[in-house]
Amino acid sequence: MRRNPIDLSLYLVTDNTHSNLREFLNIVAQSIEGGVTVVQLRAKEASTRALIALGEALLAILRPLGIPLIINDRVDIAYAICADGVHLGQSDLNVATARAILGPQAIIGISVETLEHAILAQDEEIDYLAVGPLFPTLSKKDCGVLWRLEELNQVCALSRYPVIAIGGINETNIDSVMSSGVAGVAVISAIFRSPSPLNAAREFKKRIKQYATP
Amino acid sequence: MRRNPIDLSLYLVTDNTHSNLREFLNIVAQSIEGGVTVVQLRAKEASTRALIALGEALLAILRPLGIPLIINDRVDIAYAICADGVHLGQSDLNVATARAILGPQAIIGISVETLEHAILAQDEEIDYLAVGPLFPTLSKKDCGVLWRLEELNQVCALSRYPVIAIGGINETNIDSVMSSGVAGVAVISAIFRSPSPLNAAREFKKRIKQYATP
Repeated sequence: MRRNPIDLSLYLVTDNTHSNLREFLNIVAQSIEGGVTVVQLRAKEASTRALIALGEALLAILRPLGIPLIINDRVDIAYAICADGVHLGQSDLNVATARAILGPQAIIGISVETLEHAILAQDEEIDYLAVGPLFPTLSKKDCGVLWRLEELNQVCALSRYPVIAIGGINETNIDSVMSSGVAGVAVISAIFRSPSPLNAAREFKKRIKQYATP
Repeated sequence: MRRNPIDLSLYLVTDNTHSNLREFLNIVAQSIEGGVTVVQLRAKEASTRALIALGEALLAILRPLGIPLIINDRVDIAYAICADGVHLGQSDLNVATARAILGPQAIIGISVETLEHAILAQDEEIDYLAVGPLFPTLSKKDCGVLWRLEELNQVCALSRYPVIAIGGINETNIDSVMSSGVAGVAVISAIFRSPSPLNAAREFKKRIKQYATP
């Protein structure tokens, strides 16, 4: 028996530009009020203890609202804090190992960098694919070759799992992305670096609703 | 039923001063020939994929010789590559979580930075304590307050688990450390930065044997 489907429509990935924990949590809280449906904790440079502290602070906000918390890369931390799942890059643990540690109910998403990755991912026991980067972005340096929208379309057509798009998505390009059939978009800078994360999330949400899939 | 006791007498912690994987593995292989009894993979700055690659390369050398491989901090990686255990600092996952992921047979060691840590550790299900730093060292910057030898003696007297000493141990101070009743010494620089890791390990081993405990 599989877990319930997740609302992936507006997927927030955390950035590290905030100056303190309070500001960080405030941005997340605003973005949720604006309509974010899932949060991924991504903090590559943080120590284990710092990640646990951030994760637990996020859970205190998200769990009462039923919004899933996904941990980037660190399966052990997801287990330790009882997060809802993990997001794995192509350089992280493989899906089977993560699944063995976290169990069948955990949400597991993976990043795909090429069409071949997306095809291979169909044989894994995952919950979603993240396709990116679509557009240049400030949040990830050295993020590899950009995907073309036609390729994103192809992945959406072939995938038995929901697809989200990531990388430089903002109000100027979100329509082109949503039309490709994705289940949602992942955003970092467009919310974290916005003067109003609340309004930024609301604006995304409004646009996404026009493409609502059941 | 608990696992067999581990020979902790000469415990090598990996350094990151090597220029490539081949050189790194060569240093480890030499140190084992010289008498190292357990190896901890510690590479704080390495990515998940890099740690997995290093860990698997080490296991290929160590497992046939029956020498345990311990992974620093990353419980998920220890699980993924079937390493023998993990070493946890005070800022890493807690012992109960690591034990839950790795199971009862895993070796779990912890770093204690104060006498209080050492006392609290007696209630955990662990395999050894690492006390340090004893002396100033190049391998770990900002490593905190140095232990006095009298405090190390105290920990050895009170601990129901084997104690190893770490931090700046070399041929000039090893006798003072071994006399305190430790089960072994952990070394990084003294082997990794030696012109001959083989001879360095041999010299350590010779000195340690004089204090052999069953």
